[in-house]
Amino acid sequence: MLIQPGELLAQINSPADLKKFPKEKLVQICDELRQYIVDNVSVYGGHFGASLGVVELTVALHYILNTPEDQLVWDVGHQAYGHKILTGRRDQFHTNRVYGGISGFPKRKESEYDTFGVGHSSTSISAALGMAVASKYKGIKQKQHVAVIGDGSMTGGMAFEAMNHAGVSDSNLLIILNDNCMSIDPNVGALKDYLTDITTSHTYNKVKDEVWKLLGKFSKFGTSAQDVISKVEGAIKSAVLNQSNLFESLNLRYFGPVDGHDVNHMVEILQDMRDIPGPKILHCVTVKGKGYAPAENGNKTTWHAPGTFDKVTGEIFKKTPSTPQAPKYQEVFGHTLVELAEMDDRIMGVTPAMPSGSSMNIMMKAMPDRAFDVGIAEQHAVTFSAGLATQGLVPFCNIYSTFMQRAYDQVVHDVCLQNLPVVLCLDRAGFAGADGPTHHGAYDIAYFRCIPNLVVSAPMNEEELRNMMYSGSLHNGPYSIRYPRGKGVMPEWKTPFRKIPLGQGRIIKEGEEIAILTIGHIGNYAVEASEILSKEGLNPAHYDMRFVKPLDEELLHEVFGKFTKVITVEDGCLQGGFGSAVLEWMMDHGYQAQVKRLGIPDDVIEHGEQLELHKECGFDPEGIAEAVKSMAEIAKSH
Amino acid sequence: MLIQPGELLAQINSPADLKKFPKEKLVQICDELRQYIVDNVSVYGGHFGASLGVVELTVALHYILNTPEDQLVWDVGHQAYGHKILTGRRDQFHTNRVYGGISGFPKRKESEYDTFGVGHSSTSISAALGMAVASKYKGIKQKQHVAVIGDGSMTGGMAFEAMNHAGVSDSNLLIILNDNCMSIDPNVGALKDYLTDITTSHTYNKVKDEVWKLLGKFSKFGTSAQDVISKVEGAIKSAVLNQSNLFESLNLRYFGPVDGHDVNHMVEILQDMRDIPGPKILHCVTVKGKGYAPAENGNKTTWHAPGTFDKVTGEIFKKTPSTPQAPKYQEVFGHTLVELAEMDDRIMGVTPAMPSGSSMNIMMKAMPDRAFDVGIAEQHAVTFSAGLATQGLVPFCNIYSTFMQRAYDQVVHDVCLQNLPVVLCLDRAGFAGADGPTHHGAYDIAYFRCIPNLVVSAPMNEEELRNMMYSGSLHNGPYSIRYPRGKGVMPEWKTPFRKIPLGQGRIIKEGEEIAILTIGHIGNYAVEASEILSKEGLNPAHYDMRFVKPLDEELLHEVFGKFTKVITVEDGCLQGGFGSAVLEWMMDHGYQAQVKRLGIPDDVIEHGEQLELHKECGFDPEGIAEAVKSMAEIAKSH
Repeated sequence: MLIQPGELLAQINSPADLKKFPKEKLVQICDELRQYIVDNVSVYGGHFGASLGVVELTVALHYILNTPEDQLVWDVGHQAYGHKILTGRRDQFHTNRVYGGISGFPKRKESEYDTFGVGHSSTSISAALGMAVASKYKGIKQKQHVAVIGDGSMTGGMAFEAMNHAGVSDSNLLIILNDNCMSIDPNVGALKDYLTDITTSHTYNKVKDEVWKLLGKFSKFGTSAQDVISKVEGAIKSAVLNQSNLFESLNLRYFGPVDGHDVNHMVEILQDMRDIPGPKILHCVTVKGKGYAPAENGNKTTWHAPGTFDKVTGEIFKKTPSTPQAPKYQEVFGHTLVELAEMDDRIMGVTPAMPSGSSMNIMMKAMPDRAFDVGIAEQHAVTFSAGLATQGLVPFCNIYSTFMQRAYDQVVHDVCLQNLPVVLCLDRAGFAGADGPTHHGAYDIAYFRCIPNLVVSAPMNEEELRNMMYSGSLHNGPYSIRYPRGKGVMPEWKTPFRKIPLGQGRIIKEGEEIAILTIGHIGNYAVEASEILSKEGLNPAHYDMRFVKPLDEELLHEVFGKFTKVITVEDGCLQGGFGSAVLEWMMDHGYQAQVKRLGIPDDVIEHGEQLELHKECGFDPEGIAEAVKSMAEIAKSH
Repeated sequence: MLIQPGELLAQINSPADLKKFPKEKLVQICDELRQYIVDNVSVYGGHFGASLGVVELTVALHYILNTPEDQLVWDVGHQAYGHKILTGRRDQFHTNRVYGGISGFPKRKESEYDTFGVGHSSTSISAALGMAVASKYKGIKQKQHVAVIGDGSMTGGMAFEAMNHAGVSDSNLLIILNDNCMSIDPNVGALKDYLTDITTSHTYNKVKDEVWKLLGKFSKFGTSAQDVISKVEGAIKSAVLNQSNLFESLNLRYFGPVDGHDVNHMVEILQDMRDIPGPKILHCVTVKGKGYAPAENGNKTTWHAPGTFDKVTGEIFKKTPSTPQAPKYQEVFGHTLVELAEMDDRIMGVTPAMPSGSSMNIMMKAMPDRAFDVGIAEQHAVTFSAGLATQGLVPFCNIYSTFMQRAYDQVVHDVCLQNLPVVLCLDRAGFAGADGPTHHGAYDIAYFRCIPNLVVSAPMNEEELRNMMYSGSLHNGPYSIRYPRGKGVMPEWKTPFRKIPLGQGRIIKEGEEIAILTIGHIGNYAVEASEILSKEGLNPAHYDMRFVKPLDEELLHEVFGKFTKVITVEDGCLQGGFGSAVLEWMMDHGYQAQVKRLGIPDDVIEHGEQLELHKECGFDPEGIAEAVKSMAEIAKSH
């Protein structure tokens, strides 16, 4: 259902349309754009606070830049709703994050205005620098290259790596630091404190104001900002650079802080900055959720992606279930970790900027000296955990499967080669859902099971998760546990702890002719498949392997001793995954069975609800049942 | 053969022995330690310049710290030879980097003084912070936690992530910045320029000197440095912090720069710093190769790891071969890239701090505007390359297989999900040799082949490498090429370019009964194995698959149509690797052959010469021949 935009916004189908309006209309356009985001997200859900915070910045950028010729890169990208609406996708916006609809993040396939696909943080400076260096190499001088990056993303190490390179590159790069003191959760770390210091320093701001005034004055007399800047170079050097500026240390010209919500001022500044050569950074202060009171004044983490809500009252709609519901795996993780930590004082918690997403906030609140949010810094999170482990502690380092890709070397080099007892919890393993391909946890089984010493496990339900966490805390080496985003299957989940012997699988159901081997939560689909099949007189056996590594060899001897038809099911990539491990074992042990592997194919799977994506890949309950039937058919026809 | 240490060094079997000497003897001990390193490395080879540069720092640290109780973490670790010699490994030092001997890097298994295993850069601050936080949690106050990190390693993003956390941690952490302006190659980037600015600023040094003097004066009167520091806090804040200090921005107390070669001064400083609470950084300026004139004054990259040399004349011994030799794959890469770039102006080169190791320096010299050393920054290197690719360029991003682990997310998220034409060249794939497990390129086939859109290839010889590079440059998507450290097999390697159709393997030798499928250079072992076997009347077929992904399906139909006994060989991990891909294909296509996979087992393989390690894992030429024989035996006995 198309939501009606305001009268000016209705006329904007591209940045060219935006440019037709006089500057005086920009405030109204911002209001309408903000309202359009509120109107849509309140009905359809999606990310919210971040996009509201950059409305003025977005309008100013597209008003001044010559997009898509000029290259605009959004970091992370969940703040790019305004950008999407202004660049021809207003009327598709209600399909945002829906299966088959537009993506919640910038995406090259979707629009030429989306110069670089994002989803993970801290990539924008590297990408925009690559674009700027390419333009320089080609001799294209007028082209602008802009990276918009939040202060949270700035803590990710690769942003620093990119600034270190940018500072000596002499390329036409503008970094816009969108400083709102937030990631999804409030930012942490020394950088945040530093930015706050700058922003609140009166001397500093006074000097900066004077410099800006100077720039403005000269501009009025027809002198270009480029000329002016060299004249005020001395003043900047003595007054600004000496103010302990992190960015100037890295040879980036630093401008700001400026109010990111004053659209007309932003337009002026961006116009001036277009003419300033070399790598530079503009520090904008914004407020997440700006302009929508409940979000602006309420809990910013809640309003990051609130789901649907009443836009008038700000009441967030909760589905109140009529029957007791199974909890989210995330809640089970959070509460269980505290329970374990109460029993075992070696246990610590580590999260890279996902305290609420992972539920690590439960332990951070209960035991503030034992649980750490280290910022958007997956690499550091893992090696910091390894450091804790060397001192006899047992850290639970919780990282989304997709973000664990960023700490891969640290898992290999710092944890596993040294066989240190770190429990790596991979949240959102398997399909992430509406966030799409950048967030799917599709590869972790393949990229983890090749690492020596690392246990790779996945629980089929809440009780199993609890027992794996317990078992992991007692294991003297690296232990990984992958589980999906969302709900389990056990409303009564607070079961007593029981140690699962390392590598021990379990039988879910005896059966005939065909054995289904599953790993993790997706095993519940096989249970449903069995129910479907029983109505048709088929009765496959079902084993929950629990561990991809080490495999339960005794159980596999049983399986391959009894069955010559085997189906493996996993919510992960088929290349090198769980099914592949089963094949390797079978071949190494001289069995010759027919094995059908179900899982994520070797392709980029787009966004949608988890079940929709499972269906697309053929391992939803019906898909599994079909696979069993087709294997049984072949068996019969032989 | 044990080399005789100097008279004082001969008495030092642990730091406790070192502490027995009066301070006046430290200069002599440093001289003897340096001489012992020269004597050993000149005969046995190994890393050189880095360890010479930290002799005084090493002696001062072990003189002041209470190791191993105090935690000392060396970043990268190739500078830790002095540390090893002082901590009980003097008499094993001649076995350094030899199969079965001690490791060239700190290693937890080897000594309790090696608190954290290293090899890759930029991990030390995270690890030491973990240790410091653990001590704080346990209420242990007197324990020191020291990370020694080079200015090159400081450019790696995770070092920044760790400082961002350290700055707000209130933990007892000392970071020693060992500033020698070098990685293996000269450092690059804005950080290097910044450190040079600090080091050469007279005003700055004057202020720092005064602060140090003040500290010294108070100490003499029995006032602890801890008291003093609060008194001079004001002076430091106004004079030092205002000097645009990057580290103070991150809330790390900054001290320095100091001369890292004045051992007595270093002892005083370290003594004082022990009492200064909280996270802090000491900036030491050192010279790589210090004290050995040819290394100190000569080419520092050459003297990073010179091989054996005449310690009197400084002449590096070169083996002069009597017959024409095959070139190193690295040289073939370097020269071929320039050849291709001359033909195709879209081609660019990117290396993260390995210009000489990868031979990217050839292009950097020939085409300085088209080849970039971005510093120790693998993550940035890959996403920067993706940025270049969005502008129609074709970057060749060359990263050692083991270091590619650090850019894994960038390969998935920035290159492959967007299907961008970046050619990823994985140098030192397979066993690295003497550098050992931290450097083995064991996992890349497994961790790459699960990524959608990514081509995974490996050349069997120089001509193949050239043709894959050529084919990769014409492929409209991500293309990876893995090749080993060291020599190929073709003295006449400058063959004309020929495009290899995507996923096309080739037959090396027709044969009977058994087919050997190989990937990459290791295929030459299979050729040798065939020669061994032909003497025994066995004649296996041999296929060089060239591509792990996409697999040559036509060729595989031929193989599995003809053969029921197949052996796969790869210089990579067995879990999820090339052999595993062949198994998956076989099963998906309904073939039932017996497949024996040869490769790196699921274990940490230590250091040694490549052939020694291949032999250990059973895929040297004899090992392959044995596998064929044993499969043939089974065939006969059935």
